Amino acid sequence: MLIRNPDEVEAKTMQMPGAEGVVMRLMVGREDGAPNFAMRIFDVEPGGQTPHHQHNYEHEIMVLAGTGEAYSGDTPHPVSAGDVLFVPANEVHQFRNTGDGTFRFMCMVPTSFDCGNDTCQPTPGS
Amino acid sequence: MLIRNPDEVEAKTMQMPGAEGVVMRLMVGREDGAPNFAMRIFDVEPGGQTPHHQHNYEHEIMVLAGTGEAYSGDTPHPVSAGDVLFVPANEVHQFRNTGDGTFRFMCMVPTSFDCGNDTCQPTPGS
Repeated sequence: MLIRNPDEVEAKTMQMPGAEGVVMRLMVGREDGAPNFAMRIFDVEPGGQTPHHQHNYEHEIMVLAGTGEAYSGDTPHPVSAGDVLFVPANEVHQFRNTGDGTFRFMCMVPTSFDCGNDTCQPTPGS
Repeated sequence: MLIRNPDEVEAKTMQMPGAEGVVMRLMVGREDGAPNFAMRIFDVEPGGQTPHHQHNYEHEIMVLAGTGEAYSGDTPHPVSAGDVLFVPANEVHQFRNTGDGTFRFMCMVPTSFDCGNDTCQPTPGS
């Protein structure tokens, strides 16, 4: 059993094009032996945003603190602490902090994608 | 994109032998089209506990509220809101509420297990 607090985990700046004011903590991932899915925590500073992008794997998300908007394509949806989201594979999505404090959310990804012919690719950030 | 608050989701009493004072909300699961993993929220009332059990798939967990103990085998570890846990497959584990308020945690499972010969079993509670 591994027990880890976010305060103990290094926050890495999200370098992906389109990301502004975002850091990521990999809470549980491939290097911990996670076989199927990885847990990350993202902090978006006020006015910041994640990339407006898509990929062929899903997210399951829980907002942990703050208020923001979750974009499905070009449509914003207000979200706040406690809300849970499912973003299916291939849906264009983005998160923007619309509040005055940090917008923190937990975001799960599968550890592998593009599986076929007995091979998979490691998911970025897993 | 699905957006859902725990207050909108039915809380079902955990009937598994050994569970005492536990309800579960399935936040994102197989019926939502989740292909790889499912998100559940558990509320354990003061003095309550989840089963002391094991299974051949992993958990990734985040404590959302309250204080409790996470048992790895027979060894208790204190945990509180914000802590993240990885419970590998086959490890005996249990959660007990040691506080005065609700002990709430989010617990992820793979949607399938016992995969082999091109078949899998649906994970209970996914």
